[in-house]
Amino acid sequence: MTTKRKIVLAFSGGLDTSYALVAFREAGWDVVTANIDTGGLHSGEGEAVKARAEELGAVEHHIVDARAELYDRVITYAIKANYLRNGAYPSCVGAERLIQAEKVVEVALKVGADAVAHGSTGAGADHVRYDAVIRALAPQLEIVTPIRDERLTREEETDFLRGRGYEVSEKVKKYSINEGLIGTSIGGEETYGSWEYLPEDAWTYTRSIDAAPATGVELQLTFDKGQVVSATTPDGKPLTEDTENFAILQALNELGGEHGIGRGIHMGSTMVGNLARVGFEAPGMLILIAAHRELEKLVLSNRQQATKATLGNTYGDMLHEAMYFDPIMDDFRAFLDSSQTRVTGTVRVLLHKGNIVPLGSKSPYSLLDAATRSGVVYGHGSSLWTGEQARAFAHMYSVPGAIARAAANPAN
Amino acid sequence: MTTKRKIVLAFSGGLDTSYALVAFREAGWDVVTANIDTGGLHSGEGEAVKARAEELGAVEHHIVDARAELYDRVITYAIKANYLRNGAYPSCVGAERLIQAEKVVEVALKVGADAVAHGSTGAGADHVRYDAVIRALAPQLEIVTPIRDERLTREEETDFLRGRGYEVSEKVKKYSINEGLIGTSIGGEETYGSWEYLPEDAWTYTRSIDAAPATGVELQLTFDKGQVVSATTPDGKPLTEDTENFAILQALNELGGEHGIGRGIHMGSTMVGNLARVGFEAPGMLILIAAHRELEKLVLSNRQQATKATLGNTYGDMLHEAMYFDPIMDDFRAFLDSSQTRVTGTVRVLLHKGNIVPLGSKSPYSLLDAATRSGVVYGHGSSLWTGEQARAFAHMYSVPGAIARAAANPAN
Amino acid sequence: MTTKRKIVLAFSGGLDTSYALVAFREAGWDVVTANIDTGGLHSGEGEAVKARAEELGAVEHHIVDARAELYDRVITYAIKANYLRNGAYPSCVGAERLIQAEKVVEVALKVGADAVAHGSTGAGADHVRYDAVIRALAPQLEIVTPIRDERLTREEETDFLRGRGYEVSEKVKKYSINEGLIGTSIGGEETYGSWEYLPEDAWTYTRSIDAAPATGVELQLTFDKGQVVSATTPDGKPLTEDTENFAILQALNELGGEHGIGRGIHMGSTMVGNLARVGFEAPGMLILIAAHRELEKLVLSNRQQATKATLGNTYGDMLHEAMYFDPIMDDFRAFLDSSQTRVTGTVRVLLHKGNIVPLGSKSPYSLLDAATRSGVVYGHGSSLWTGEQARAFAHMYSVPGAIARAAANPAN
Amino acid sequence: MTTKRKIVLAFSGGLDTSYALVAFREAGWDVVTANIDTGGLHSGEGEAVKARAEELGAVEHHIVDARAELYDRVITYAIKANYLRNGAYPSCVGAERLIQAEKVVEVALKVGADAVAHGSTGAGADHVRYDAVIRALAPQLEIVTPIRDERLTREEETDFLRGRGYEVSEKVKKYSINEGLIGTSIGGEETYGSWEYLPEDAWTYTRSIDAAPATGVELQLTFDKGQVVSATTPDGKPLTEDTENFAILQALNELGGEHGIGRGIHMGSTMVGNLARVGFEAPGMLILIAAHRELEKLVLSNRQQATKATLGNTYGDMLHEAMYFDPIMDDFRAFLDSSQTRVTGTVRVLLHKGNIVPLGSKSPYSLLDAATRSGVVYGHGSSLWTGEQARAFAHMYSVPGAIARAAANPAN
Repeated sequence: MTTKRKIVLAFSGGLDTSYALVAFREAGWDVVTANIDTGGLHSGEGEAVKARAEELGAVEHHIVDARAELYDRVITYAIKANYLRNGAYPSCVGAERLIQAEKVVEVALKVGADAVAHGSTGAGADHVRYDAVIRALAPQLEIVTPIRDERLTREEETDFLRGRGYEVSEKVKKYSINEGLIGTSIGGEETYGSWEYLPEDAWTYTRSIDAAPATGVELQLTFDKGQVVSATTPDGKPLTEDTENFAILQALNELGGEHGIGRGIHMGSTMVGNLARVGFEAPGMLILIAAHRELEKLVLSNRQQATKATLGNTYGDMLHEAMYFDPIMDDFRAFLDSSQTRVTGTVRVLLHKGNIVPLGSKSPYSLLDAATRSGVVYGHGSSLWTGEQARAFAHMYSVPGAIARAAANPAN
Repeated sequence: MTTKRKIVLAFSGGLDTSYALVAFREAGWDVVTANIDTGGLHSGEGEAVKARAEELGAVEHHIVDARAELYDRVITYAIKANYLRNGAYPSCVGAERLIQAEKVVEVALKVGADAVAHGSTGAGADHVRYDAVIRALAPQLEIVTPIRDERLTREEETDFLRGRGYEVSEKVKKYSINEGLIGTSIGGEETYGSWEYLPEDAWTYTRSIDAAPATGVELQLTFDKGQVVSATTPDGKPLTEDTENFAILQALNELGGEHGIGRGIHMGSTMVGNLARVGFEAPGMLILIAAHRELEKLVLSNRQQATKATLGNTYGDMLHEAMYFDPIMDDFRAFLDSSQTRVTGTVRVLLHKGNIVPLGSKSPYSLLDAATRSGVVYGHGSSLWTGEQARAFAHMYSVPGAIARAAANPAN
Repeated sequence: MTTKRKIVLAFSGGLDTSYALVAFREAGWDVVTANIDTGGLHSGEGEAVKARAEELGAVEHHIVDARAELYDRVITYAIKANYLRNGAYPSCVGAERLIQAEKVVEVALKVGADAVAHGSTGAGADHVRYDAVIRALAPQLEIVTPIRDERLTREEETDFLRGRGYEVSEKVKKYSINEGLIGTSIGGEETYGSWEYLPEDAWTYTRSIDAAPATGVELQLTFDKGQVVSATTPDGKPLTEDTENFAILQALNELGGEHGIGRGIHMGSTMVGNLARVGFEAPGMLILIAAHRELEKLVLSNRQQATKATLGNTYGDMLHEAMYFDPIMDDFRAFLDSSQTRVTGTVRVLLHKGNIVPLGSKSPYSLLDAATRSGVVYGHGSSLWTGEQARAFAHMYSVPGAIARAAANPAN
Repeated sequence: MTTKRKIVLAFSGGLDTSYALVAFREAGWDVVTANIDTGGLHSGEGEAVKARAEELGAVEHHIVDARAELYDRVITYAIKANYLRNGAYPSCVGAERLIQAEKVVEVALKVGADAVAHGSTGAGADHVRYDAVIRALAPQLEIVTPIRDERLTREEETDFLRGRGYEVSEKVKKYSINEGLIGTSIGGEETYGSWEYLPEDAWTYTRSIDAAPATGVELQLTFDKGQVVSATTPDGKPLTEDTENFAILQALNELGGEHGIGRGIHMGSTMVGNLARVGFEAPGMLILIAAHRELEKLVLSNRQQATKATLGNTYGDMLHEAMYFDPIMDDFRAFLDSSQTRVTGTVRVLLHKGNIVPLGSKSPYSLLDAATRSGVVYGHGSSLWTGEQARAFAHMYSVPGAIARAAANPAN
C-alpha cells in the first residue's frame, strides 16, 4: 500500500478553488485546504468555507488568521513609507497575496505536503506573487495551478462540479471583489476600459460624497515612532475599544467610509506588462497615510522626506511586484525604521464629504518649536540671524548660479 | 553738474516699497519703479500703484505684464512635472519671485540703472530668490535692500512716511496675503504654530466644503503633449472664451474655488533653514495636476512615471529654492519635454465639495488600447500569453529571490 | 505549387547557426542568412562566413555593416552617460545584440520573410535581447530558436552536420570569445567560479602590465558636446587618419591595449536572475569614459554630475537588460544630450602600464575660469566674497543642523 | 578681580594658529590649545606642537588622539558606501575637520570655555565645516576666527609674531599639504588651474608608476559585515602586526604607495560654490574600496548595489559638505549597515605599477554558489530552467516593450 501524495490548497470556497479541490482529489491527492484570513472574512464566513471544504472532500481544513501579522509586517511599513502606488492606490491586494502564500507554505511544511496549489489565473499578477514566495521558501514543493496552466473557464468548472453533484451558485457577480484589511478592490465592465467610472452600486461599503453627512468629524491621531497608537475625538474619546494592532485601521475604514472617503480607481502597469485598472475602497489607509505624512513634515528634514518618498515608493513597488526576497527589502526597512525615530506626535484630521483635511499637528520633536527655542539661544532677539547675515547669505547663495551663468557665456 | 545715479525698485505700492521709494529719493537716487504683474493685480490696481509711485516721487513707472511668460516658462513645467512641494503645495510664491526679479533686471538694463532694489525682508526666502536672479543676470548692478539689511519695522516705516506728509493706511491686515496666477498664499497667527488651522475668514476666494454646491460639476480637460488645450463641459461647452495661454488656469481657479477646492496649509523647510507654514488657495493648479497625472497613467510606462516623480520633484524644489541658474534645470526640462511626447488625450474630472475625482481618460497613445490591439496581433485569442507561458514566467520571475534566499542561508 | 516559407537566420558561421541553417532547410524553409558586423569581423572573415552560408544551402546571404550605427546610436550615449555596468564593465556584448536583432528584422522585412531565427542558447541573456527587439519591431514574425528551445548540445549539432557531409572544425576552443567594437568578452573555466583570474593566454590582444612599454604615452582627446572629435599626441599628431565615426575608438583599443589597459572581469546579475562572471578587454571605452568624465568635472555642476551618474547608470542597465523600447529611453537620451551642451574641450590623458591618468583639461566653458572672471567682475579684489560674508554664510549654513539637533533633544 | 574669559583654539603649530594664540592672549583671553590627531602627526611632532603652544603662552595644551574614532565613525562608513567624491576622491580632508571640530568642542566643554577658535580661512570649505559642528553641538559657545573674518595675510601674521620676538620659519612651502589617516591632500601652483598635473616632487610618499617595483604583490583582504578584518599574503602572512582598528588601512597606505597606487587630482565644486582642484595620495582607501566593492558584487543583489551607489554617494557628499547633523545621516547609516549583513568573505587583489586589480573573491553568501546549489535543488540537471521556460520568459519579458511600441504607433 502506497501513501497518497499530499497537497495544500489555498482555499477560499469560490468556484476556482472548489473545482481544484475536487480535481486534485480525483487525481489521487490527499487535499488539505488552507483558508488564510487577511481581513476579507466576514462573521461566519470562515465556518462556511470550512463546511464547503469538507463537503468537497478535503482531508484537513486549516483556518489561519493572518491579520495581525499582515498589519505588523506589511501595513506598518506601508504607512511609514507613505506608500501609494502611482501616487494614489494603497496596493490593496498585492501584499496580501504574499502573506497568504507564506501561510500556505507554513501549513504545507507542517502537514508534510508534497505540493501546494493556488487558484490564481494567469491573467493578472497574483500567480506570480504566489509562486515567488513558494519557490523561495520551499523550492522542494511542487506548485500545482490548473486554473492558470489550463486556462479553464468558469463554465468548464461549473459543469465539472455539477456533474459530480455539487451545487454551484447561479449568481454571476457583476463585479469581481476582493476584500482585505488594507482595502477592497473592485473590477468590472467599466474598469476594463479607461473612460468610464464605476457606478454607485459597484462600491461595497463606502458612501458617496452626496450620501456622506453634511457635517464632518475631527479626529486626533497619535503616532509613536511612525506607528499609530491612538485615534480619538478632540475631547479624547477613543474611536475604538478593540485592542488588536489593526483595530484603529479597521475603525477608520468604517468611519472614513461613512464620510465618503476612500474610493478611487487605480490604473498602472503590472509586472506582467499590461496596464490594469481597478476600483478600490481604502479609507483607513488613506487617512493614516495623510496624517502620518503631515506629522513627518513637522519633524523630518527636507532630505529625509524627499529620500523617503523615493525609497518608500521603490519599496512599495517592489513589494507589489513580488520582489519580496530581494535582500534590499531589509535595507529599505532599516532605513524606514531609522527615519521614524522622531515621528512621534499628534495630528488633527477632519473627515468631511470625501476630504481628508490635516488641520494641525504637534510633536516633542517639532522643528518649528526647535527653531523658536534656538532663536532664543542664539540671542538675536527673535531671530537666528541679522539683516547683514541674511544679505551675506543671499550673496553667497547666488555664487554657484552666477558662476554657472558666467561659464555658459564665455564671451561675456 | 553730475548725473544722479539711477535705481530700479520692484514696487507694489505697499508700505515697505513706499518707504524705500522715498528713502532712496532722499538718498539722492533717481528712482524708477517697476510693478510686475504675475497675476496678483486686480482690475484698476495697476493704476493705483502707478499713482502712488508718482505721488512718492518716482521719475518713471513701468508696468510689466509677466503673466503669459510665467505661464509658459514656469507653470507649464510645474504641470508636466506634477510638482507639489512636500506632496501638497503648488509653490505659489517662490517661482513668481524669480520672474519678477528677471523683469526688474530687464527694466534696469533698459533704463541704464546703476542699482536694483527690492523690499523683501530677511526673514523668509524671497530675498534670496531676488538676489540669486539679479547677481546671475547682471552682476554689475548694485543690490539695495534696506528692509532686509536694517530690519526696519512697519512702525518705523509708517512714521517715516507720515513725517513727510504721505498717507499710510490705518488698516493693519490680520493676514499677510500674496496673490498670483499660481495661487494665493495666506500667513497669519494660526500659521506661526503647527496646531491651528486657518479660520473661515482668512481665506480669500475659495468656498468652504460646506458652502460649496451640493451638486458637483464634470469637466473634460484635453492635453496636447502635456499642456492643457481645452476645458469643456461633457457636452462640449468651453469653460472660458478667453484666449490667453493662462485662461484655462484662471477659469479653473474660479470654478474650483466655488466647489470648495484648492485650500491647504503648506509646511516645509525653506532654504534658509527654518520650517515655514503657510495657507494657500490654488484650485486651478491642483485640478490641472490631478488631471495631467491621470492621463500620464494611461500613456507612460511605470519607469517614466517613477523617474518623473523623482526628477520633477527635484526640479520643482530647486526652482522653489532659487537654484534657477544651475545648468541642470535645462536638462530637467529636456527630460520633461521628452516625456510628454505622448501625453495627449482627454481626462474626465469631477469637481465636488472639495474633491477632484478623475473619472476616466482616453488617448490615442493609450497603453490599455495598445495591449488590446497587441492581443489580437499575437493571435492567442484574447491574450498575449498562454497558461504555460504565464507559468514559466512566474517560474523565471522567482529565480532571483530564490537564489538570494539560498545565498542568505548557506547551511541549507 | 506552394511557395516555401522564408526564414532569416542571424548567421555567424559558427556551429550553432550552421546547424540551424541546415535543420531549417530540411524542415522546408527557404533560409536567408544575415551576417551583422558590429565590429567582430576581422579582415576576410565576412567572405568566409558567406561561403559557409552558401555551402550549407542558404538561398540568400546578407552582410550588414552596423558599426557606424552602433557607434552613433549606442556608444556615443554610453560615453555621454559614462556607463560602466557595476562600475567597471563597458557592457560589451549586450548592446550589440540589440543592434544585431534590429538588422535581422530589417532584412526579414526586406525579403518578406515569415520568420526570424537566432542561435542564442537559453542559458544567458542574449536570447531575451533578441526576442525583445523582434517582438517589438515585428510582432507578426515567428521566432525560431532550436538551440534554446531544445537545449541542443555541441555534440548533437556536430553529429548532425557531419552526418550530412559537412565539415566541422575539431578545435574546441578553451575560451568562449565575443569580439565587437565596444570590446571583447572572454568566458572560460576560471570565470565559472569567482575565485580565479583569467590566465595570460586567455586574453586576446591587450598586453599584460608586465609586457606594456616602460614609458607611457600622453594623448590629448578633444570633445564637442560630449562626443570625441580628435585624439592627438601633445604636439598635435592625430592618432589615426581613418574617418569613420568609430575610428578613434578603434585606434584607442589598439594603443590602450599595447599599454596594458582595458582588461577586467565583470561580475553581475543578469536579467534572467543568475550571477554571471566574464572577462573583457575594452581599452578604448575605458579611456574615452575616463577622459569624458574628467572634462565633465570642469564644466558641469555637482547636481548635473550626480544626477547623470544615477540616470546614466539606469539608462545603461536598461539597455543591457533589453528594456530597449521602454519610452523612458528617449527621455534619458534627451536628458543626456542636454547635459552635454557645454561638454566641449580637451583632456590630457596618460596611458601607462595599465593606468589611465587624467593629467589636465580645458574648456571654454570651464567653471574654474568663470569663477576667476567673476571674481574680477564682483570687484572684491581677488575674491567673490569678504571675510564677513564667509562668516555669515557659515553661520547660516549651520542653521538647519543646529535646529535639527535642538529638535532631537527637546529637553535641552 | 574678574576671571579672564577662556577660549579653546584648534592648534596645529602653524603660522595661522600661532598668530591666533598670541593675538587672543593679548586680547585678554586665557588660551587653551587643542591639537587633534586625525593621522597627520608624525613621530615627535606632537611634542613640538606642545612646546610651541607653551612658548606662545597657552595656559593649557591638550593632545587628542582621534584616529580610532575617525576610523570607526567615518572611515568604515566611507568603505561601506564605496564613497569616492566625483567618482575618484576619498574626501581626505573634509571628514577629518568634522571630527576635529567635535573634539575641540569636547575640550571646550571640559575646561568650561566661553569660546572656541579655529584658524580656517574663508576661501575654502573648512571654516563652514568647523562652524557647522560647533553651532550644532554647543550653540552657546562664541566662535572666534580672525584669519577668516579679517582676511589676514601670511606676511601680516609673520610680522606680528616676529615683532613680539617669536621665531617664524623662513621656509615658504611650495605646496600646501594636509596629512591624515584617510589621505594626504596637496595644493599648489599646478592645481590652481585645470591643465597642469602635479610634478614628481609635489607628491609626499607614494612612488610614481616608473619607480614602483616591476613585480606586483598579491593580497587577500577579508571582510566581516563590510569591515576589513585581515590583510595577508596569499600564504597567510599578515600585512601588519598592529592591532589598532586603523592598522590595516595604514599598512595599505604604505604598501600601496610603494606600488605607485593612490595618486590623483580631485576636481569638484565646493559647498561655497567655486570649483576646487587638489592633488591627493590615498592608496589605502582606494585599495579597500576596490576590494570591498568586488566582494559586494558577489553577495549583493543588483538593486542593492545600484541603490547603495546612489545613497552612498549622497551620504558621502553630505558629510563632505558638512550636513553632518541632518537626521538623514543616521538613516543612511542604518541602510548601509543593513546592506552589509552578508558582505563577508575574502578578496584577492593585485597591487602592481599603480593598478589595483581584483583577481577573485569568495564568500559563504556567494550568489554564484547559491545558484549552483539551487540548480541541483530544482532538479533540472544543471539548470534552473528548461528551454521552453527560457523561451516563455523571453516572450513575457518582451511584452511591455511591444505594447509600448504599439501604443506609440496608434495607426499601425
